[in-house]
Amino acid sequence: MNHKSNDTQAVKLTGADIAKHNSRDSCWVIIHGRAYDVTDFLPEHPGGPKIILKYAGKDATEEFEPIHPPDTLDKYLDKSKHLGEVDMGTVEEEKKEEDPDEKARQERMAVMPILEQCYNLMDFEAVARKVMKKTAWAYYSSGADDEITMRENHSAYHKIWFRPNILVDVEKIDFSTKMLGTKVDIPFYVTATALGKLGHHEGEVILTRGAKKHNVIQMIPTLASCSFDEIMDAAEPGQVQWLQLYVNKNRNITKRIVQHAEKRGCKGLFITVDAPQLGRREKDMRSKFDDVGSNVQNTSGDNVDRSQGAARAISSFIDPSLSWKDIPWFLSITKMPIILKGVQRVEDVLRAVEAGVHGVVLSNHGGRQLDFARSGIEVLAEVMPALRERGWEKKIEIFVDGGVRRATDIIKALCLGATGVGIGRPFLYAMSAYGLPGVDRAMQLLKDEMEMNMRLIGASSIEQLNPTMVDTRGLSMHSATVPSDTLGLNVYDPLVGPKEKAKL
Amino acid sequence: MNHKSNDTQAVKLTGADIAKHNSRDSCWVIIHGRAYDVTDFLPEHPGGPKIILKYAGKDATEEFEPIHPPDTLDKYLDKSKHLGEVDMGTVEEEKKEEDPDEKARQERMAVMPILEQCYNLMDFEAVARKVMKKTAWAYYSSGADDEITMRENHSAYHKIWFRPNILVDVEKIDFSTKMLGTKVDIPFYVTATALGKLGHHEGEVILTRGAKKHNVIQMIPTLASCSFDEIMDAAEPGQVQWLQLYVNKNRNITKRIVQHAEKRGCKGLFITVDAPQLGRREKDMRSKFDDVGSNVQNTSGDNVDRSQGAARAISSFIDPSLSWKDIPWFLSITKMPIILKGVQRVEDVLRAVEAGVHGVVLSNHGGRQLDFARSGIEVLAEVMPALRERGWEKKIEIFVDGGVRRATDIIKALCLGATGVGIGRPFLYAMSAYGLPGVDRAMQLLKDEMEMNMRLIGASSIEQLNPTMVDTRGLSMHSATVPSDTLGLNVYDPLVGPKEKAKL
Amino acid sequence: MNHKSNDTQAVKLTGADIAKHNSRDSCWVIIHGRAYDVTDFLPEHPGGPKIILKYAGKDATEEFEPIHPPDTLDKYLDKSKHLGEVDMGTVEEEKKEEDPDEKARQERMAVMPILEQCYNLMDFEAVARKVMKKTAWAYYSSGADDEITMRENHSAYHKIWFRPNILVDVEKIDFSTKMLGTKVDIPFYVTATALGKLGHHEGEVILTRGAKKHNVIQMIPTLASCSFDEIMDAAEPGQVQWLQLYVNKNRNITKRIVQHAEKRGCKGLFITVDAPQLGRREKDMRSKFDDVGSNVQNTSGDNVDRSQGAARAISSFIDPSLSWKDIPWFLSITKMPIILKGVQRVEDVLRAVEAGVHGVVLSNHGGRQLDFARSGIEVLAEVMPALRERGWEKKIEIFVDGGVRRATDIIKALCLGATGVGIGRPFLYAMSAYGLPGVDRAMQLLKDEMEMNMRLIGASSIEQLNPTMVDTRGLSMHSATVPSDTLGLNVYDPLVGPKEKAKL
Amino acid sequence: MNHKSNDTQAVKLTGADIAKHNSRDSCWVIIHGRAYDVTDFLPEHPGGPKIILKYAGKDATEEFEPIHPPDTLDKYLDKSKHLGEVDMGTVEEEKKEEDPDEKARQERMAVMPILEQCYNLMDFEAVARKVMKKTAWAYYSSGADDEITMRENHSAYHKIWFRPNILVDVEKIDFSTKMLGTKVDIPFYVTATALGKLGHHEGEVILTRGAKKHNVIQMIPTLASCSFDEIMDAAEPGQVQWLQLYVNKNRNITKRIVQHAEKRGCKGLFITVDAPQLGRREKDMRSKFDDVGSNVQNTSGDNVDRSQGAARAISSFIDPSLSWKDIPWFLSITKMPIILKGVQRVEDVLRAVEAGVHGVVLSNHGGRQLDFARSGIEVLAEVMPALRERGWEKKIEIFVDGGVRRATDIIKALCLGATGVGIGRPFLYAMSAYGLPGVDRAMQLLKDEMEMNMRLIGASSIEQLNPTMVDTRGLSMHSATVPSDTLGLNVYDPLVGPKEKAKL
Repeated sequence: MNHKSNDTQAVKLTGADIAKHNSRDSCWVIIHGRAYDVTDFLPEHPGGPKIILKYAGKDATEEFEPIHPPDTLDKYLDKSKHLGEVDMGTVEEEKKEEDPDEKARQERMAVMPILEQCYNLMDFEAVARKVMKKTAWAYYSSGADDEITMRENHSAYHKIWFRPNILVDVEKIDFSTKMLGTKVDIPFYVTATALGKLGHHEGEVILTRGAKKHNVIQMIPTLASCSFDEIMDAAEPGQVQWLQLYVNKNRNITKRIVQHAEKRGCKGLFITVDAPQLGRREKDMRSKFDDVGSNVQNTSGDNVDRSQGAARAISSFIDPSLSWKDIPWFLSITKMPIILKGVQRVEDVLRAVEAGVHGVVLSNHGGRQLDFARSGIEVLAEVMPALRERGWEKKIEIFVDGGVRRATDIIKALCLGATGVGIGRPFLYAMSAYGLPGVDRAMQLLKDEMEMNMRLIGASSIEQLNPTMVDTRGLSMHSATVPSDTLGLNVYDPLVGPKEKAKL
Repeated sequence: MNHKSNDTQAVKLTGADIAKHNSRDSCWVIIHGRAYDVTDFLPEHPGGPKIILKYAGKDATEEFEPIHPPDTLDKYLDKSKHLGEVDMGTVEEEKKEEDPDEKARQERMAVMPILEQCYNLMDFEAVARKVMKKTAWAYYSSGADDEITMRENHSAYHKIWFRPNILVDVEKIDFSTKMLGTKVDIPFYVTATALGKLGHHEGEVILTRGAKKHNVIQMIPTLASCSFDEIMDAAEPGQVQWLQLYVNKNRNITKRIVQHAEKRGCKGLFITVDAPQLGRREKDMRSKFDDVGSNVQNTSGDNVDRSQGAARAISSFIDPSLSWKDIPWFLSITKMPIILKGVQRVEDVLRAVEAGVHGVVLSNHGGRQLDFARSGIEVLAEVMPALRERGWEKKIEIFVDGGVRRATDIIKALCLGATGVGIGRPFLYAMSAYGLPGVDRAMQLLKDEMEMNMRLIGASSIEQLNPTMVDTRGLSMHSATVPSDTLGLNVYDPLVGPKEKAKL
Repeated sequence: MNHKSNDTQAVKLTGADIAKHNSRDSCWVIIHGRAYDVTDFLPEHPGGPKIILKYAGKDATEEFEPIHPPDTLDKYLDKSKHLGEVDMGTVEEEKKEEDPDEKARQERMAVMPILEQCYNLMDFEAVARKVMKKTAWAYYSSGADDEITMRENHSAYHKIWFRPNILVDVEKIDFSTKMLGTKVDIPFYVTATALGKLGHHEGEVILTRGAKKHNVIQMIPTLASCSFDEIMDAAEPGQVQWLQLYVNKNRNITKRIVQHAEKRGCKGLFITVDAPQLGRREKDMRSKFDDVGSNVQNTSGDNVDRSQGAARAISSFIDPSLSWKDIPWFLSITKMPIILKGVQRVEDVLRAVEAGVHGVVLSNHGGRQLDFARSGIEVLAEVMPALRERGWEKKIEIFVDGGVRRATDIIKALCLGATGVGIGRPFLYAMSAYGLPGVDRAMQLLKDEMEMNMRLIGASSIEQLNPTMVDTRGLSMHSATVPSDTLGLNVYDPLVGPKEKAKL
Repeated sequence: MNHKSNDTQAVKLTGADIAKHNSRDSCWVIIHGRAYDVTDFLPEHPGGPKIILKYAGKDATEEFEPIHPPDTLDKYLDKSKHLGEVDMGTVEEEKKEEDPDEKARQERMAVMPILEQCYNLMDFEAVARKVMKKTAWAYYSSGADDEITMRENHSAYHKIWFRPNILVDVEKIDFSTKMLGTKVDIPFYVTATALGKLGHHEGEVILTRGAKKHNVIQMIPTLASCSFDEIMDAAEPGQVQWLQLYVNKNRNITKRIVQHAEKRGCKGLFITVDAPQLGRREKDMRSKFDDVGSNVQNTSGDNVDRSQGAARAISSFIDPSLSWKDIPWFLSITKMPIILKGVQRVEDVLRAVEAGVHGVVLSNHGGRQLDFARSGIEVLAEVMPALRERGWEKKIEIFVDGGVRRATDIIKALCLGATGVGIGRPFLYAMSAYGLPGVDRAMQLLKDEMEMNMRLIGASSIEQLNPTMVDTRGLSMHSATVPSDTLGLNVYDPLVGPKEKAKL
């Protein structure tokens, strides 16, 4: 049977037509009311064939939607495999088994806290954890290996304490600043995070709108659920966006992406350098495994994709051979400032200066790549003195991301010399739980905290923040206390408070 | 309808009269049997209009009472808005919904521990937590952001250990000392804390009486529930009090307050310098939110005041532009010794000496302002060597507050060079739970501990305390241990003790 | 009515006779079948009048027994107050209320683990906690204030790690050593602890027998439940005992005690220098309070003794004016070696050498006196280098007590330079739970551990232990980690292990 | 009755024959269908007589099997005591009491996670803990004393953090390396662990097969359940194995073992130097005690073996007099490289170089011998600088074992200078839970992690790993935090997140 992919004329396909092609030998799927022959594509699918085969001969829209930008099929599937429209009335509706997890989630949704009850960025995470779908939560919240770096990222800020100035006139507080030449209202930007539609059906454009409202910059992720152009289109005139780039092995593709971004008006190119291979995140892997179901234990052969979770599904097309020698080429193909995202030690910051790039992000990818990578804020404390020693501190802009949850975290980074900080997951959680109003409130809370804490540290503008305002003596130690003697702890009879009166 | 505020003649107003004015357009309230038109005042109310509107057309006494000194209406509401007496028999009694929280609290009150069961200052807090009203507890017990500084304040004392002298004659122990020229029985003072009537219907005068009984000094708070004069009047002849001051933007008001205090006999002026804006305390905000009730989620427009709690309600009239340049003026308007309350780094202590003030309080406002501000005791360890190096240690008196719970804490501060320490919340909790007998016992317990521990450290008088008696090597580190690997902890099979015999 | 205390003739008193004297005005009690008039003694009773009045007109034997040596009445109550024998058949038996705590304890006794299930010293404590009477447990297990020093005592050993030698011939292990000239099987001694009959009806003589069996020295406590002579009498020929001394204000009494001990054969005089006043132990105070009962809340006047617990009850007759100037006098009244027990800093060890005493015990009284006193082992690490620097390390024997629970603890102390260690509570717990067999097994376990660990550290004799065998870099820090952010910890979703299969 | 042990002719023995010899005076047992007279052997049994007497007159196969290699009886029991075959049909089957522990274990087995759900080495331990027999689990999982060193072994890796290189070409990763001349696929070896049949009925040969599959070296334990030759026979041609040796007091036996191993093709001799006496492991002791049953409390006399567990049962024949003077003899009897296993301080590594051995394993025997021995990785950080200082780093190969659970742990050890790491328990757990597929997957997971993390640290081969890639500032501290004040922690009212809406 030969279908021509001529949308204008054709008789619509029926559910029965599709249902016949339900195997590895001939595999058709329906997406958004159109049929596609993905038989040949199965082995190339970055997420592995298994997940497609689950929907062979069926409608895969719901699974496809959140993790593929809308232009995916046009880009990666030959037109000859586009089989045309399906008469959706003829497609048998899948009977879904009642899922007790999903039912419990719906119950939690019904008593979801109202937005005004969220007073800080952690609160959005608390709500999101309860109301997000399990796989989506697992993808967003997971980190590498034991998630030690992921947690250290915020914990490191706890080792930095303030030395506030008093009796400074702080009536008027201005915490606007400049990043790569752009004036922003507050020194954070929305950093790139993948697969926004897992959390909210509209995806990353929600963040675009939130960023506009608070005049901060959004960094557009390569692995967005929305297409790049959709995200650019969602911006309002004058709104500044940056591009985060995973470098494709095919440099022509890379070049096309970069130059397209520049043409569309992107104001910064953030090249990811901490992810030559996408991380192994066990929470995500376990969640994905559960999703595919228990029959998986009988299969064999395609072991690899079986246990990888959403993280691995999107990891194709990243060039692990990317190296310092590629930097001049990047500088040659664009006039956008180039920033290396994921630098993790002072030696590489110095080398970045020498390579002529315009900035670095001290980052460990949100703790999602190498466990036991140090926090960005710790690396910053190592980097700035070395730059100052060489008089290079103005030659490059230093950004930090990972673990920022409070305005005090932002202030600490700026005291130590950062130009600004990137914030990712907290806005994803706010978006997943409450949509744009959530993102709006999250950003407003940071502004409220920022105003308060600038006053309390005794600085009326960003320029006044400096290293004497922080005490970083605790920062360099990676303390793990000696394991305790459980026998000793068990026999200790702890003190208790006053005893209640007997009831009469 | 035109009411003249002539109290002497008028026909009394009725409940029905008042009830008509129950909206933002015309808002009357009854307080202590008298009616007030607060329509025009709504937007100016430091606590926001919402809380007043809840009582529009009704009796607001119960809500008003604990957080406003009795002279508030006279001071801040124009006489033309005083509508005169109300015939309270005609006012319909509000039917209160049964509040399960309040019911549970009443049950806890019924089995409240007897006072003699409180053996230390923490015990009063344990009782207060159970028997105080939820909003009052939230206001007293809350701190800034994650309450890390609030807890660090006491925790920092745990890093200081003793190096006691032995074989010193400690038969007679004298721990009386002098603060700003006043002889006191023990080197602490009752520091200023706001809204005493939240905890006890009589408010701060309870503390006045307790301070008298134990011959210690009380610092009178600007934001007391009792009026300044009430607190002064509660003192007995010869009893010494200090004034804590939030500086009003209107310096004439400030001047009037200061000079009135001096005239009334205050012996020290403590200018608050760590609170240009009152702190954001989320525990308090959540508690207040709950109090206003669930209908709040339908409203809009006045978002700001909705989520602020008691802390924000009292934050008006503090001048954030207060700066070092104002100090000479203060020195010019009073002969009282001037002390800066809330100094947080050595540089500012040195500047205070140069500015000619008489003392500083190393304080972070009980952890209620800037989270990650260091503890006063840690700053003290940084300050004293710098003073001694310059030979300035006698030029200024150094006080410390925050986290003092044991006599050993007091002794540690004095060993390091403090003149005395301020104690706030513990006395509030003692007062809230047990009234004056609670405060009395709390102070007596500190004296008992003090005598014991002076003996045990081998010092028979305050002068004998010195830095060689403490080991502060742990004090400067802000350790946060590396996050643990939950998998590893979960699989460890802990040792257990001997197994019981099987029962026959 | 006039009773002559002539035991030989008198008609026996009846219960009814005694019962009439049941008030503060005339207070008689029965002890071991004899009546005593304690009316005049009430105000002098170290434990306060209240506890005696509870038994006014009644038989007080059960309460009296465990905390008073048998010669107490002879020593402290004038013969004229000894009223003679009581016909116990006429004394109405006290109906005891059923005590639910005691009932639960009896149930725990019924399933008490068999002795062979105790594999280490902590195990005895675990059993004792369950089977001891509540007040006895509270007295033994309590420490000063927050019990931080008490716990630090053992915890400090966790900061010391080994640097073992390998390939040393350890076939034959000899860990016998000498203390003050006495050869002992293993370098620990049974240190003095008060009120042994609280744990076991025979009291301290149990420890005497255990010490004999394992050839270690027992230090006899001043505040023993058995009399000094009973404990001496329990020793076998050649068995060595020391005397722990609280110095009485009346130096004649002190002299009599010391010279009597020397005459009876004591081989060392340990003068307690860390307890000019007996400690405040809140666990003990709460337990005592409960014991006296709820009616206490109605009384007044004798507040002091009401909240003191067993610790305070025995604190009389200690001279707080004891000082260095008294040392020559002690040296003049005895030829026994004199050791200062409770030295807590290097300066005082040096002074002890200069004063000519023969030893010191680095001790904080088991954490029962000054909270935040450092552990003996930490002080040892400070002391030995200072002694060696002066070439004084042979001039004085250094002992350590507090927190020793494992043979590795003993080895650590000896590596650092101690002559031996004192062990107290663990033997009390072993005795309380299992009597002499418990003490025997506890000591044997230490010997087993000692042999094993001497081999494993690569030392065949005590002389081979030296400072290069331990790593003490962690010892000097008094780390308290930064308080954690509860919000952050709550929202973290911890990793979990593999999921069980669904049951078929 | 006189039985000749002539297997070829004899009439088979009956169950009744055997059953008569059921006492200490005459003790026969059946093993694998043959009878043995062990009466004279009872006192020599390393595991004590008690455990044999439990089976006197009965079939002991099930108990005997997992802890004795098959050649045990031939080696250690004189032929005259081999009584010949038993007609097993005549042996009364033992009625086993229903064991609730075993029943619960069977239930856990039924829902045992599928293998693919294990994503890391800890997961196998989690499963093994649930499905292994209690005594087997206790033997494998136990450590010395408080198991502090056992836990520190892995915890120490948490103190080492990465300083990754970026922009290094990591497309091709090669983590093969050489150990003692053998090329291996990944720098770990399967270290020696005792009694493999406790976990899996086939025992150590499972590990042999797993090691072959992944081209890593297996170290054969002296105390294997399989015989040495069985393990050698299980290897495939070209597969490399090493021998771990406990040195027998009879050097002829030692020599025979060593030379036999060399002849069979062993490529390395690892002499155990950290176990002159086998460790005391209380978890194991408690488990064994429970197993023997409650009647034990009535016995006496043979106290020693009663409380020793599996660890002590195998501890015979180890020479505690082994010392440095024996090393030349070892060098003289074999050409295999000699490695000292269990070196624990830098001084002994230097001495090992001088003694001419070829390698050392920095090890504390998996935390099973001396508690508070430092982790191998910590000792490594002390050793390598000392070697480099002397230019000796090529003279000797340094291995580390203990606590390795992640590829990042391996990378850390190699960055610091180790040639490779030994992994023991994790493979035992994988084998116990899942047999060979478990071991296979465990090794594959390490390879997957290794590839990933080599990329992420920016090294494409083992040679590129170096000390600048790790931050070890936290490694040397043995922090134990100050005990917390339970009263203070109890009264703190922790922050909570947003409140759920009331359900409608």
